[in-house]
Amino acid sequence: MDQQVCIVGGTGALGFGLALRLGRAGVPIVIGSRDEGRAQEAATRAGQAVPGGSFTGAQNAAAVGGAEIVILAVPFRNQSENLANLRTALTDGQLLVDATVPLAAAVSGKATRTLGVWQGSAAQQAREMAPSGVRVVSALHTVSAALLTDLDHALDEDVLICGDSREDKAQLAELIGRIDGLRPVDCGPLEMARILEQLTPLIISINVRHKVRAGIRITGL
Amino acid sequence: MDQQVCIVGGTGALGFGLALRLGRAGVPIVIGSRDEGRAQEAATRAGQAVPGGSFTGAQNAAAVGGAEIVILAVPFRNQSENLANLRTALTDGQLLVDATVPLAAAVSGKATRTLGVWQGSAAQQAREMAPSGVRVVSALHTVSAALLTDLDHALDEDVLICGDSREDKAQLAELIGRIDGLRPVDCGPLEMARILEQLTPLIISINVRHKVRAGIRITGL
Repeated sequence: MDQQVCIVGGTGALGFGLALRLGRAGVPIVIGSRDEGRAQEAATRAGQAVPGGSFTGAQNAAAVGGAEIVILAVPFRNQSENLANLRTALTDGQLLVDATVPLAAAVSGKATRTLGVWQGSAAQQAREMAPSGVRVVSALHTVSAALLTDLDHALDEDVLICGDSREDKAQLAELIGRIDGLRPVDCGPLEMARILEQLTPLIISINVRHKVRAGIRITGL
Repeated sequence: MDQQVCIVGGTGALGFGLALRLGRAGVPIVIGSRDEGRAQEAATRAGQAVPGGSFTGAQNAAAVGGAEIVILAVPFRNQSENLANLRTALTDGQLLVDATVPLAAAVSGKATRTLGVWQGSAAQQAREMAPSGVRVVSALHTVSAALLTDLDHALDEDVLICGDSREDKAQLAELIGRIDGLRPVDCGPLEMARILEQLTPLIISINVRHKVRAGIRITGL
């Protein structure tokens, strides 16, 4: 059977867009939210947008239960709280994909600037806070939520991944590769999240300046 | 007459590759070095590689004299010393293009890590140290020196630029656009150099992992 993917923060723009694209690729999706009703409402909307897809909704701690892969797609402001709440819900062997970006917008600053995170990056904070048996990788900082959600848009860009285990990155790469037009690229160990998380404000700055929805492509690969 | 470009550190890998590509595009190049003999030797080599090009070599402070655009392509270890030495040589109105990257390799650390720079980035340090009449932009952190130098290689990537003046960035964009296969992209104000300078260690990490010479392309533009 196909591995189930849970998206914590799946009612948000990035999470919902990922749910649609992965669901369309045949991946069973559980949308997690702090609020069970909102999660179920998002799952219903996703099912309408992707008629053949499998979408269910649940409160975050319940949602992660049966998932092989858990994508954390919440604002940085809520990342620490979410990880604390999920501490007893996450189970050994699960792959946690942190997509959090410490934008200064979290503290009423600019979305083209970031905050310094004591551990080095949001992903390294996730590594510190997740149970030790949970595997942590970092990715999905540069794909536009709006373009993911617009299923008529043909994606054509890269998803940069970092993590300390090749197997963990390969597992995520396999999942990402199922979405048409997205190419996974292994960028190195988890500490590279310090750099990957900076790509979001770069993309936002380019978007504002050129009135586009930019993404990243690595040339020469 | 064509504007003259001086490359401080033009005997280094990045500087020399830029000299070749710009020289082939018809731009008169002055190669600067701490050592006049090495600068002249590099100019001779450049002339052999690009027979139609205009290349001269001079000691750095003399080299910047007649140039409209000065590209600072030196290791971070030497950036501050170079800027101090050029303080009286740079003249009002010149455009200084800082290509410096504060790799941790400068202090015997890894080339996949960076140092924190007090001003925020090497480019902001250049802004602080250059005479106030000199305009400062930041660029050229992701183009492979080896691919620039290999004139048979067809480039196909972006050059990300940041700076506080649209006119300054447009002047550099015009210069970059003369090199076949390079597309200039305005990424915002000079403070974005904090992010652009992080792209070098990212590219290095990708290069090591995938045995390639990677570059960056912004999608959606």
